Amino acid sequence: MQNRAVYMTGLNKMEIREIEFPAPKEKEVIVKVEYVGICGSDVHYLEHGRIGDFVVNGDFILGHECAGTVVEIGAGVKRLKVGDRVALEPGCTCGQCEFCKSGRYNLCPDVEFLATPPYHGCLMNYIAFPENMAFKLPHNVSSKEGALVEPLAVGLHAASQGGVRLGDKVVILGAGCIGLVTLLACKAFGATEVIVVDVIEKRLECAKRLGASCVINAKNENTLDKIAELTAGKGVDKVIETAGSEFTIKQTPYLVKRGGTIVLVGLAPKDIIEFDFMQIMTKEAEIKSVFRYRNLYPAAIGAIADGKIDVKGIVTHEFAFEDTKKAFDFVIENKNDVVKAVIKI
Amino acid sequence: MQNRAVYMTGLNKMEIREIEFPAPKEKEVIVKVEYVGICGSDVHYLEHGRIGDFVVNGDFILGHECAGTVVEIGAGVKRLKVGDRVALEPGCTCGQCEFCKSGRYNLCPDVEFLATPPYHGCLMNYIAFPENMAFKLPHNVSSKEGALVEPLAVGLHAASQGGVRLGDKVVILGAGCIGLVTLLACKAFGATEVIVVDVIEKRLECAKRLGASCVINAKNENTLDKIAELTAGKGVDKVIETAGSEFTIKQTPYLVKRGGTIVLVGLAPKDIIEFDFMQIMTKEAEIKSVFRYRNLYPAAIGAIADGKIDVKGIVTHEFAFEDTKKAFDFVIENKNDVVKAVIKI
Amino acid sequence: MQNRAVYMTGLNKMEIREIEFPAPKEKEVIVKVEYVGICGSDVHYLEHGRIGDFVVNGDFILGHECAGTVVEIGAGVKRLKVGDRVALEPGCTCGQCEFCKSGRYNLCPDVEFLATPPYHGCLMNYIAFPENMAFKLPHNVSSKEGALVEPLAVGLHAASQGGVRLGDKVVILGAGCIGLVTLLACKAFGATEVIVVDVIEKRLECAKRLGASCVINAKNENTLDKIAELTAGKGVDKVIETAGSEFTIKQTPYLVKRGGTIVLVGLAPKDIIEFDFMQIMTKEAEIKSVFRYRNLYPAAIGAIADGKIDVKGIVTHEFAFEDTKKAFDFVIENKNDVVKAVIKI
Amino acid sequence: MQNRAVYMTGLNKMEIREIEFPAPKEKEVIVKVEYVGICGSDVHYLEHGRIGDFVVNGDFILGHECAGTVVEIGAGVKRLKVGDRVALEPGCTCGQCEFCKSGRYNLCPDVEFLATPPYHGCLMNYIAFPENMAFKLPHNVSSKEGALVEPLAVGLHAASQGGVRLGDKVVILGAGCIGLVTLLACKAFGATEVIVVDVIEKRLECAKRLGASCVINAKNENTLDKIAELTAGKGVDKVIETAGSEFTIKQTPYLVKRGGTIVLVGLAPKDIIEFDFMQIMTKEAEIKSVFRYRNLYPAAIGAIADGKIDVKGIVTHEFAFEDTKKAFDFVIENKNDVVKAVIKI
Repeated sequence: MQNRAVYMTGLNKMEIREIEFPAPKEKEVIVKVEYVGICGSDVHYLEHGRIGDFVVNGDFILGHECAGTVVEIGAGVKRLKVGDRVALEPGCTCGQCEFCKSGRYNLCPDVEFLATPPYHGCLMNYIAFPENMAFKLPHNVSSKEGALVEPLAVGLHAASQGGVRLGDKVVILGAGCIGLVTLLACKAFGATEVIVVDVIEKRLECAKRLGASCVINAKNENTLDKIAELTAGKGVDKVIETAGSEFTIKQTPYLVKRGGTIVLVGLAPKDIIEFDFMQIMTKEAEIKSVFRYRNLYPAAIGAIADGKIDVKGIVTHEFAFEDTKKAFDFVIENKNDVVKAVIKI
Repeated sequence: MQNRAVYMTGLNKMEIREIEFPAPKEKEVIVKVEYVGICGSDVHYLEHGRIGDFVVNGDFILGHECAGTVVEIGAGVKRLKVGDRVALEPGCTCGQCEFCKSGRYNLCPDVEFLATPPYHGCLMNYIAFPENMAFKLPHNVSSKEGALVEPLAVGLHAASQGGVRLGDKVVILGAGCIGLVTLLACKAFGATEVIVVDVIEKRLECAKRLGASCVINAKNENTLDKIAELTAGKGVDKVIETAGSEFTIKQTPYLVKRGGTIVLVGLAPKDIIEFDFMQIMTKEAEIKSVFRYRNLYPAAIGAIADGKIDVKGIVTHEFAFEDTKKAFDFVIENKNDVVKAVIKI
Repeated sequence: MQNRAVYMTGLNKMEIREIEFPAPKEKEVIVKVEYVGICGSDVHYLEHGRIGDFVVNGDFILGHECAGTVVEIGAGVKRLKVGDRVALEPGCTCGQCEFCKSGRYNLCPDVEFLATPPYHGCLMNYIAFPENMAFKLPHNVSSKEGALVEPLAVGLHAASQGGVRLGDKVVILGAGCIGLVTLLACKAFGATEVIVVDVIEKRLECAKRLGASCVINAKNENTLDKIAELTAGKGVDKVIETAGSEFTIKQTPYLVKRGGTIVLVGLAPKDIIEFDFMQIMTKEAEIKSVFRYRNLYPAAIGAIADGKIDVKGIVTHEFAFEDTKKAFDFVIENKNDVVKAVIKI
Repeated sequence: MQNRAVYMTGLNKMEIREIEFPAPKEKEVIVKVEYVGICGSDVHYLEHGRIGDFVVNGDFILGHECAGTVVEIGAGVKRLKVGDRVALEPGCTCGQCEFCKSGRYNLCPDVEFLATPPYHGCLMNYIAFPENMAFKLPHNVSSKEGALVEPLAVGLHAASQGGVRLGDKVVILGAGCIGLVTLLACKAFGATEVIVVDVIEKRLECAKRLGASCVINAKNENTLDKIAELTAGKGVDKVIETAGSEFTIKQTPYLVKRGGTIVLVGLAPKDIIEFDFMQIMTKEAEIKSVFRYRNLYPAAIGAIADGKIDVKGIVTHEFAFEDTKKAFDFVIENKNDVVKAVIKI
């Protein structure tokens, strides 16, 4: 069978090429990729050729949010069979280091993560993947939804790191894709009041539609004053920063309640930030951070199947495989309008 | 103002009497009681005059599930004001013992709990109550719903003790009032599959209506076989026993998954039960238990206000204050049909 | 009986005055104070008249670390009797707010804390105190040790907030009194390697004597390099900052291991600090903070009685009650030499 | 090089045979075995040929508690080098199932555990073993101590499952090998009072020597009465059952405090036990169980190196490799006297 992949061949350059059809190794399955989501990191690699220490060297395949159908199984595959539709969790870890053994495999130093150099991504027709990282989708979860499990897992990990639970009041700073999946996650974890802050009206409308109790456009209102007003000056149980701006990270200590938790998800453009630790200490607040996710695909899929989370609601644009370059161009040119673009393969 | 209370004056005897209008002590509020739910323990006291070591001596006022409107406030009351509608958490604790100080106030040995001898209940028009145990209801939560916060809190504590979280598969044994609020609670905590087992079809229909993924009538199907079938022989993450029968308590080790949790909520008619601990140990399962609840009223009210939990759905019968005796008689004679009866005061 | 107290009558002014002998209210005991420790906050009030928003107005009694003997008991006292020796936990909390009820009473906004304006301290002969905050000392724990339970509780809370457990590698920044009790606490919690950093040799010797696996004099060695060397570049499980300097707070992200925890205990002289959050996020580290302590007196006393913690080892100087002013002067003039001074009453 | 193993060739039959010298696979090391501890399960296999569903078929090598020196390393070995002394954690798990990925690898259904049929044990001169399950011993931990890390890990897991922490009062039922390592573990986790119960005086003396605060000979004293006396009728925070007798398992609900934890470690000779669940529920106690251990070897080795745990103290008998049969015979005939026998290879 024919197999093709979209290669990034330089900054802002892409082309589709034929590649070999993969052969499954032991405990691997071959998946016909059906949907791939475009993530901010994919776009960043295409525009800048690197993220921190991860540098694209030579032609490179992007894409790490995907789902599809199993078309072949390797030796030793037990759970999956041909015809099963699956979502792929993109980080294959060693299973043997202290982080893997203690259940924090997202911290495994030897992870091989799709579309993180030197490992290629999944913007291709057929991919070989370990069975244990391919999670079966039930009949009522589409492959498109399957591709969205990846960003959703980030939101779920944020809510999980924050210990979000029934009755919590939460502020989410930023209503981009990650802000919105965090909103969905917090609602699913039981938060009863979720306030979302952004400066782009379209995103806030989306947040409202996806269940935010209240949205704040920080262009028009002072976030600190407004949250103080909404909480009788006490602040909220959990503040989750997804905007990744210096400005919003600095706001978090003033928004959180005594004994509350701040969760940092968005990466700021600079490493070092001036931060009011005195606020943190007098409130005995804690600060958690999020690096990818762990052990959340089954819960994410279950929550979509159960109707608890409407992850489709974040997709704003869809493109064909042949139009991948066009898709990336569109995303780059319309950053404020695109919440999530997906490519149908 | 006039104040009246329903007194239990002997086994299966009740009468309404005038009582003094209460004066608020420091930090107390006077609440005009609007709804009182009838709990199994109220019925048990009326029929048997005792529950374990708690013995009714002399005339006694039943009722501990209630909500109403603040009509007067005592000195030092800060949060509440006249006109606020509130749900009352019925256990007033010492605030000073090791259990109170460590946040497990439900274990306080000096608790004064409504309708638990020697403390009278709330089946009356006006009651004095500590402000800190009276939780304000938002405008979109009715006083009837407020009275249901108490049983709901039991369900929430069961789900909390079980560590129920997003993606969990749960079996609930028993679909009486506590089984059903546990169902609501598990869904709100994120369980994506909740299987409810009972032998009374009407209750199972109610469970289905309230969101059970699957119901099992144990009269017609073998619970163990059915759960094994539904879970590929693995069992479920959490098993919550609310039926309080020896038979169902004994089933729990066979239903729970490796590493899973059993939560015991229902009190069995006998103390000592033959139990398969070998199953528990080879699975490294854990067994938690539930004694009332703690720190859950705000979350419960938030979840009702947010639409996450439809607690009204458990009410099957409503009676007037004057008909309280009739209400108790009806509940006693129709145990299988009544999920929750409430009295409008 | 005669009762006297040491009053702070202005900046750096103190005098001993006769005061009334206290009468015990309900559930209170009268304690003959035997030892009072001098804390940095006492010294700070004496020198500056304020700490943040807490301002000394008029004559003020300092001291909040104390132990003594019960000489009288009020109505309703159950556990204690005349002759019992007790350590006093200095913060009396409301027992009714959400923080108290959930076991985090150290965050109670209505706490009345000894020697925190407007509440007087315990530098006196006889004090009335609630029974539930007076913890009985067993025969093998002296009153001097009892007075040291307070600072020890801070160290225990730091170790507890850090989740220190068997096998942990810990770095403690700062070897003043709080650094040293944190060292004792970490050892008692099971840390198997505790590295202590300071710039004062005397303190490091004390740390060594109290069980530090390794000490670093940051004047002579680069802390970051040394810790990297000791941990094969991985960092340590827990970093506990007790020095309260901007410089050391900024070091913490580079010392902590992937997935590790930073605990902030020391208050920096400025609120806002430049901090490398990128380090935190790529490591998915967390930052906890410490505000006083909670629920730790019984464990602290048990650990001293059991020989697990040798808290006496931190006392470097002892003064008589009459010499209290001299004691404070000495502490102020010899900050580097004094780890802990106590006053025998 | 020559390699020999002790084979169990039938019930109570053993012989030493030459076996092939192992070749290291990828990521494996060859370890010259220096000490092997004899565990109750080894003895049980030798006497009965099976434990539950695990049946010895054909000749079988016993032994799973061992340590030795690395003499050869396979491809891809990173951490270890020839000459390193190591303790071997005997269960090699799949690293890919939900239990492994969530850090509970002791529940992995595909574990290959030394001396658990069909997997041979380590009573041999040289064994090939995965590097990631071979933990380096520091210079001050002997290979004999290294072999004792395995039983110690069971005790540590028991203390960990029980959430034993600073200040806890603990009762340990049973003072055999597992009872004693649990004692060591509880002390290391911070328990300040550990009461050990047994019926064999020698074992109780050993418990006393290893740090028990109090021992009870249940032949002479009523355990329930004595614990009630020692705890003013309240019971203890944690009850850890290691005796594996029906009688002691049934005692646990009466020994545990309100809100406390029971940990079941010992396997009873029968599956089903009459148990007072009413006690559990009115106390809101919890029951945890222990299946082997997880993630504890590094902490165990650290605690031995640090002097926190004197694991050597449990060894009562030592035999030479050639005398392995004699050793097993001795252990079988002197069950009450032998706490732990080790074989020097």
